[in-house]
Amino acid sequence: MTDTPPSPQPAQAIPLPAVFDRYREEVGIALRAGLSGDDSPIRLMLSYAMGWVDVDGVPTLATEGKALRPTLCLLACEATGGTTADAMPAAVALELVHNFSLIHDEIQDRDDVRRHRPTLWKVWGERKALVAGNVMRIVADMALWGHEDRETALTVAALVTQANLEMIEGQYMDLHFEGRMDITMDDYLAMISRKTGALIRCSLVAGAAAGSSDPAVVEAFEKSGRAFGMVFQVRDDYLGVWGVESATGKPVGADVRRKKNAFPFVYAMSKAEGRDKDDLLEIYGRPEVGDGDVASAVEIMERLGARESAQELAAHQSDRAVQALQGIELAPEARRDIEDLAHFLLVRDR
Amino acid sequence: MTDTPPSPQPAQAIPLPAVFDRYREEVGIALRAGLSGDDSPIRLMLSYAMGWVDVDGVPTLATEGKALRPTLCLLACEATGGTTADAMPAAVALELVHNFSLIHDEIQDRDDVRRHRPTLWKVWGERKALVAGNVMRIVADMALWGHEDRETALTVAALVTQANLEMIEGQYMDLHFEGRMDITMDDYLAMISRKTGALIRCSLVAGAAAGSSDPAVVEAFEKSGRAFGMVFQVRDDYLGVWGVESATGKPVGADVRRKKNAFPFVYAMSKAEGRDKDDLLEIYGRPEVGDGDVASAVEIMERLGARESAQELAAHQSDRAVQALQGIELAPEARRDIEDLAHFLLVRDR
Repeated sequence: MTDTPPSPQPAQAIPLPAVFDRYREEVGIALRAGLSGDDSPIRLMLSYAMGWVDVDGVPTLATEGKALRPTLCLLACEATGGTTADAMPAAVALELVHNFSLIHDEIQDRDDVRRHRPTLWKVWGERKALVAGNVMRIVADMALWGHEDRETALTVAALVTQANLEMIEGQYMDLHFEGRMDITMDDYLAMISRKTGALIRCSLVAGAAAGSSDPAVVEAFEKSGRAFGMVFQVRDDYLGVWGVESATGKPVGADVRRKKNAFPFVYAMSKAEGRDKDDLLEIYGRPEVGDGDVASAVEIMERLGARESAQELAAHQSDRAVQALQGIELAPEARRDIEDLAHFLLVRDR
Repeated sequence: MTDTPPSPQPAQAIPLPAVFDRYREEVGIALRAGLSGDDSPIRLMLSYAMGWVDVDGVPTLATEGKALRPTLCLLACEATGGTTADAMPAAVALELVHNFSLIHDEIQDRDDVRRHRPTLWKVWGERKALVAGNVMRIVADMALWGHEDRETALTVAALVTQANLEMIEGQYMDLHFEGRMDITMDDYLAMISRKTGALIRCSLVAGAAAGSSDPAVVEAFEKSGRAFGMVFQVRDDYLGVWGVESATGKPVGADVRRKKNAFPFVYAMSKAEGRDKDDLLEIYGRPEVGDGDVASAVEIMERLGARESAQELAAHQSDRAVQALQGIELAPEARRDIEDLAHFLLVRDR
């Protein structure tokens, strides 16, 4: 991949906004409480999947996720007048549902590596990983009972369950699109708004619903969350082709090699004509995509504007995520945190 | 398998007790309402998995399950003074959770056939079947919101979720036992009380909790449910070795061929010495178990009393299931229905 122009991002990590630091410890404690209990082998698997321990159960620090969904959820709750405690059960449930989906996705996609470590099924086998994923999902349900207020408990449970369903429908669409070369931009957007969008949107909506009983406030966070989900996934797809391996943990052009119906391919196919189209169809039609194929496909995508267009769409949605909340009253610092987050998701390199 | 003595059950079906008929239509309508919605391909998969339609979506009648869990749940609710409507959301959720577990189990066990039809993953592939199973599980959650009374909704949701977790822990234990020959009878009983016991027990407990607020009543149904779960699974294991193919849809000795740590093997291993033990270890240690091996293993199991002992244990638990409810007040006809069910589970041939 020597012909790819230098990435607009430096290879070193883009620093996480301060809001992640603010909630990290509290979220970590709540997540660990949710997953505590007996010392069964399943708990070890779940702790490994969360990035807390290695395969032998020895605690590690470097492999934990950034907890984007809990952070969004708690921020929305505080921004709308609630406390972190008001939204913590939802925040925990959302992170666990997210991890449940990663575990099953990795089995389905035969992914060997996540965050530079072997995936759960690679270590424990497919069948135990499938079961462990189902346990993670149930522990998520149980976390939701932690809302002290019964009305909030039922409202939030309904929101999280609905988001979970949409997420799974998105996974189904993704599988259904696989191997097809006629996926339109509309198909793609409908899929990502469910597959990754639903949980991110729900993080903000559930947080706002726990913090405020004003439907207009919740609705504004719904709009903002929709845009946040788009920024996240479009940037993810960008990194899937133009990400730097030292940051993402995946080789450059990883999504091309896996022939994924991600933004760059869908966009390029919507623009490609003649030779370019034939080449893309041929490359994505091959059983195995080699290094040369990846380089050729990426070159075509770049030339047709997929890279710029992805970043433009992400930037547009990043603005919308902030603007959607313009009309409602928020603590000034919360607004700044939301702006920082919307910017971070646009420029992150991992 | 010409050397197996005649089965104590006739080859024709043991008729279902009348209580199944009483609830069948109402349960069928409620289940279909729970799974209704858009005409997405996932819905088709779920309807197929429920046995309602063929692969093309054409309605079928012959392949529906007997809905044991909803029947137990509604019966417990009516027996304790409630109406079928009071427990229907729980009944639907339990049946959907059961079907979710079947879908994932079939993927894990590479089962090709259920009720004489190809399993979901055989038709749609592993990955889509996994996703469809997850949708089934979420629709189960959603069904629970149908309880009009908020307190009942939360109580029953907690019961069903806890049972779901225990069920999955039982699946994990089952996987964990696989290939091992040192499983004790205690290990086995602990596993089945979770894997199949949890949902059956929960069916009675959730039904009783929806029908009565007396903790003593709910506790009696908990005891009864524990025994019902044992009858069910021990008889299931009996049929896995001595069942008649025309009834079970599985060849005689199916569980021996799959080297399952089911009752007959665990019991026989607890009794076997010398030559018998060596032979069982050798047969269960083989990569493939042939017809001759199956016949030899079944002969040893019979000789060591596994067959009699399985049926004795099931009979004992069947009595306990009825006796556990002796001290509490029930409608006389409900008590008769429970006795009929306890007897049916003991003698069923499929």
